[in-house]
Amino acid sequence: MPHWTELAAEKKQRQLKSIPQGWLVSPPPDSTLDVTGFPETCGLLTEREIKITNTSVDVLLEKLACGEWSAVDVTTAFYKRAIVAHQLVNCLTEIFVDHALARAAELDDHLQQTGKVIGPLHGLPISLKDQICIKGLETTMGYISWIGRYAEKNAVLVDILIECGAVPFVRTNLPQTVMWPESFNNIFGRTTNPYNRSLTPGGSSGGEGALVALKGSPLGVGSDIGGSIRIPSSFCGLYSLRPSYGRVPYCGALNSLEGQDSVHSVFGPMTNSVGGVKAFMKAIVNAKPWLKDPLAVRKKWQEDEYNLVDHGSGKDLCFAIMWDDGVVVPHPPIRRSLEMTKAALEKAGHKVIDWKPIKHRLLADTTARNYRNIWNAASAEDYMITTSVTGEPVIATMELDDSNVAAAPFRPKKVGITAYQLWQVQKLRKDIRKEYLDHWEATVSETGTGRPVDAIICPASSYAATPHGKNRYTNYTTVWNALDYPATTFPVTTVDPTLDAKKPPHVFYDDCDKGIYNMYDPEIFKNAPICLQLVGRTLEEEAVIKMTEIVDGALAATK
Amino acid sequence: MPHWTELAAEKKQRQLKSIPQGWLVSPPPDSTLDVTGFPETCGLLTEREIKITNTSVDVLLEKLACGEWSAVDVTTAFYKRAIVAHQLVNCLTEIFVDHALARAAELDDHLQQTGKVIGPLHGLPISLKDQICIKGLETTMGYISWIGRYAEKNAVLVDILIECGAVPFVRTNLPQTVMWPESFNNIFGRTTNPYNRSLTPGGSSGGEGALVALKGSPLGVGSDIGGSIRIPSSFCGLYSLRPSYGRVPYCGALNSLEGQDSVHSVFGPMTNSVGGVKAFMKAIVNAKPWLKDPLAVRKKWQEDEYNLVDHGSGKDLCFAIMWDDGVVVPHPPIRRSLEMTKAALEKAGHKVIDWKPIKHRLLADTTARNYRNIWNAASAEDYMITTSVTGEPVIATMELDDSNVAAAPFRPKKVGITAYQLWQVQKLRKDIRKEYLDHWEATVSETGTGRPVDAIICPASSYAATPHGKNRYTNYTTVWNALDYPATTFPVTTVDPTLDAKKPPHVFYDDCDKGIYNMYDPEIFKNAPICLQLVGRTLEEEAVIKMTEIVDGALAATK
Repeated sequence: MPHWTELAAEKKQRQLKSIPQGWLVSPPPDSTLDVTGFPETCGLLTEREIKITNTSVDVLLEKLACGEWSAVDVTTAFYKRAIVAHQLVNCLTEIFVDHALARAAELDDHLQQTGKVIGPLHGLPISLKDQICIKGLETTMGYISWIGRYAEKNAVLVDILIECGAVPFVRTNLPQTVMWPESFNNIFGRTTNPYNRSLTPGGSSGGEGALVALKGSPLGVGSDIGGSIRIPSSFCGLYSLRPSYGRVPYCGALNSLEGQDSVHSVFGPMTNSVGGVKAFMKAIVNAKPWLKDPLAVRKKWQEDEYNLVDHGSGKDLCFAIMWDDGVVVPHPPIRRSLEMTKAALEKAGHKVIDWKPIKHRLLADTTARNYRNIWNAASAEDYMITTSVTGEPVIATMELDDSNVAAAPFRPKKVGITAYQLWQVQKLRKDIRKEYLDHWEATVSETGTGRPVDAIICPASSYAATPHGKNRYTNYTTVWNALDYPATTFPVTTVDPTLDAKKPPHVFYDDCDKGIYNMYDPEIFKNAPICLQLVGRTLEEEAVIKMTEIVDGALAATK
Repeated sequence: MPHWTELAAEKKQRQLKSIPQGWLVSPPPDSTLDVTGFPETCGLLTEREIKITNTSVDVLLEKLACGEWSAVDVTTAFYKRAIVAHQLVNCLTEIFVDHALARAAELDDHLQQTGKVIGPLHGLPISLKDQICIKGLETTMGYISWIGRYAEKNAVLVDILIECGAVPFVRTNLPQTVMWPESFNNIFGRTTNPYNRSLTPGGSSGGEGALVALKGSPLGVGSDIGGSIRIPSSFCGLYSLRPSYGRVPYCGALNSLEGQDSVHSVFGPMTNSVGGVKAFMKAIVNAKPWLKDPLAVRKKWQEDEYNLVDHGSGKDLCFAIMWDDGVVVPHPPIRRSLEMTKAALEKAGHKVIDWKPIKHRLLADTTARNYRNIWNAASAEDYMITTSVTGEPVIATMELDDSNVAAAPFRPKKVGITAYQLWQVQKLRKDIRKEYLDHWEATVSETGTGRPVDAIICPASSYAATPHGKNRYTNYTTVWNALDYPATTFPVTTVDPTLDAKKPPHVFYDDCDKGIYNMYDPEIFKNAPICLQLVGRTLEEEAVIKMTEIVDGALAATK
């Protein structure tokens, strides 16, 4: 067998060949950090293609449905912009132009001949994280050991997207093992942040984050087991949703930690408008995924829940803001974005109180950070068995300089635990879920609405996009995975050194808090997007989307 | 610390004292096997009390709601009959007459003063398996080590039942560890079958099965991880439902194998009519259990699903009968009950085809029967740690003569497996769930209805109630737990030696099949009830209940 580096090089070479020659551009030098303006100035896209790719999902769907824009034209426009994006930030894995354009042409023919759309996502190009198998294409998930694995069938989600009329058109980069909050692997290398290429786009759905931020895709599907949709969405300024377990079908996709039945990875949308989040979720849920995926929850799209039947029909909502989680104090721009959101909501007539976090540190310990935790119960064996086929190294850090391995917080211990030990940590987590539910219900005494808090608003991370290798604290997202609460991200502002000066040191919770405080320098983070999360109750996706629309509208009204 | 036998004796003594002296009767000698007639002839119950206790749940609820029967009278009637039942078949654990009657009196006062019921189960006495904690009462679950554990709060289900107006009034017997399909433990001893006390009522909810069969309770709540509701319901001739995971709240109840997050135990109703099953499920689901139990599924009662919106509105259904599971051939009376049901459904205008089971043996291996399986991944440690507190023995057989331990199929290995090994078996099970779903969907080509098979009808066990210690094959129920399919039981007939003669040996699948064939003797099983299962899709409880009503009506029409 060739050395793993040769296998990687051969695969990268094939990737390069899959790009149409005419779509190669001359990207700016590495020293140009902000590349968000490049796609519109590089000369590859026509004016019409620029207009198409700057259009939000709901408007795209209208124009596609009435035939004003053809699926081929829309797919071509986004494909060209995606290829430009890739040359800027290295965000793609599989590129299959002919395949996608052929499907787009079928959709156009159908619409012309019948006057009807195929489904609610007719003609919409959708990018997919490199776990989501498409028949006939390789799915490596960034593992050299998986090069040459051609899918014999589509993941269930792909079948449903196709039924809905969508056009899967690229796959996107992710970290080896899919268990890092950045995006680097031994085949495709590192994805960078289009707002500042010295920063990470986050991960593990970092390819999606970077691609959608550059408008190389109108909507991408990421996966999230501890923040992997919301972290890159936050670092790249996107709307997104981590749904509850089983609301979006996962069956037939690849992943690491397979057989882990406790804290599940889920798929969800990443896009440039909350309308895109809604269009995706409604289409998928109404396609009855439970007829194709045994773990998909049999629950149709509930229009009454979207209309906030359980939240006073959306009048006089009471939001609770979590300013910090009691473990790590967020950086100044995060704090400012929470203040902006509070002011906007109060101006819109809603009530805003403080959220008191309970046991966030312990939730992280049971799920991800401690030695005896749910993911790492057997993750070391899982990674070793997969990589040992080719001898590729298990990546131990996301740092540019990989000598600093010891500090890597996401590296599992070499040996797992017993099933009995796993049961004990799972039991502890179940008990905390009950405690957290009761805690939320008890807020009825504070809201003045007769209801408990309608939604929590909180940071998506303690900071904006960090330099590569420095994204070390994910618990602002991971707690909601542990609790299985659905959570969106929505953009609020960007880092502004004049408004977001470094503050004097606070009394640190611990060394991790101190280290994150020390990392802040407004010039390093300058111009990075800031998103927040809106968090609701398990299986309450409809209400969470509607309340995100309300918050987004309130913020827009103050700008 | 006293010897464990002394602790057990002291607890039994307290149980005896909790019985009102006037309710003690002179039960028939042990040689009287069928005791089903005794409660109505023993002289303790008045004519009115006999009438009340012979009434089905929906009629009881009507008479309670209009005040024709008071909650105190109804509770008293069932309590007396429960105490008689206990003296016949040893079915109770906790007895708390004053507590229950006080609650019944409150309900009567409320109805008198307001003219309104407290909730949809107003005044209905409900018995509970001895896992379901009631504040202030001991919950031992049959473990001597748990004697003296007084609950500080109600299980969530108890809170909801009380909100709904029900009157929890007794708790019922179960096997040590709750992981046997019979009902024997070191504190309360063995529960027997009221139709024939030399037979088991099944388990693990055997106390409920025996009690409800004797009409000592109108409705009981059992738990089911591998058949523990359906086996005793089947052995005792009851209607019951094993709901999907999370449809009925489990939080705050005790169990063994805590922290096992893969194949969950669930609660469900056991009663004498399918109307009782519906009344219970509708009340519980509409009480929004997800606001009290983080694992309860946020899905309201779907009246359109009850009206079979996904099944052609219930006209021209297509049922599939599974005659055997490819592992063990059912005994002759089971076969006859399937034939009766097929004929009744065809007469009622429905279509009936054959169900082809796939991978039933492998499903059992992953879940329960193999060495590396999900329940036994750490069950030995779990049992040992619990029992070691007092040194009570872990029970190794349900046989009357316990010298035959080696043959006990439910005894776990002494040592568990690693978390990585557990993940592999969980992954295998997930793959089979997908395969089974696709298999079911593919039946659309055979039904002629344009839909896949609407429901499966199959044995609840390969036999009727067995002699004690002989219930060794549970996979007719366990497969549906592994797949998370909801399943009811419904009574069809009883064993009749003239109709159910022993057949000549078939070609045996294996030694287990042969052993079960050899066990059959119509005289041993004479008069034992026979129930079947109706099996639907995950989270489709409403449709499964309605289809059970349809099958039950079809059977009634032929009698």
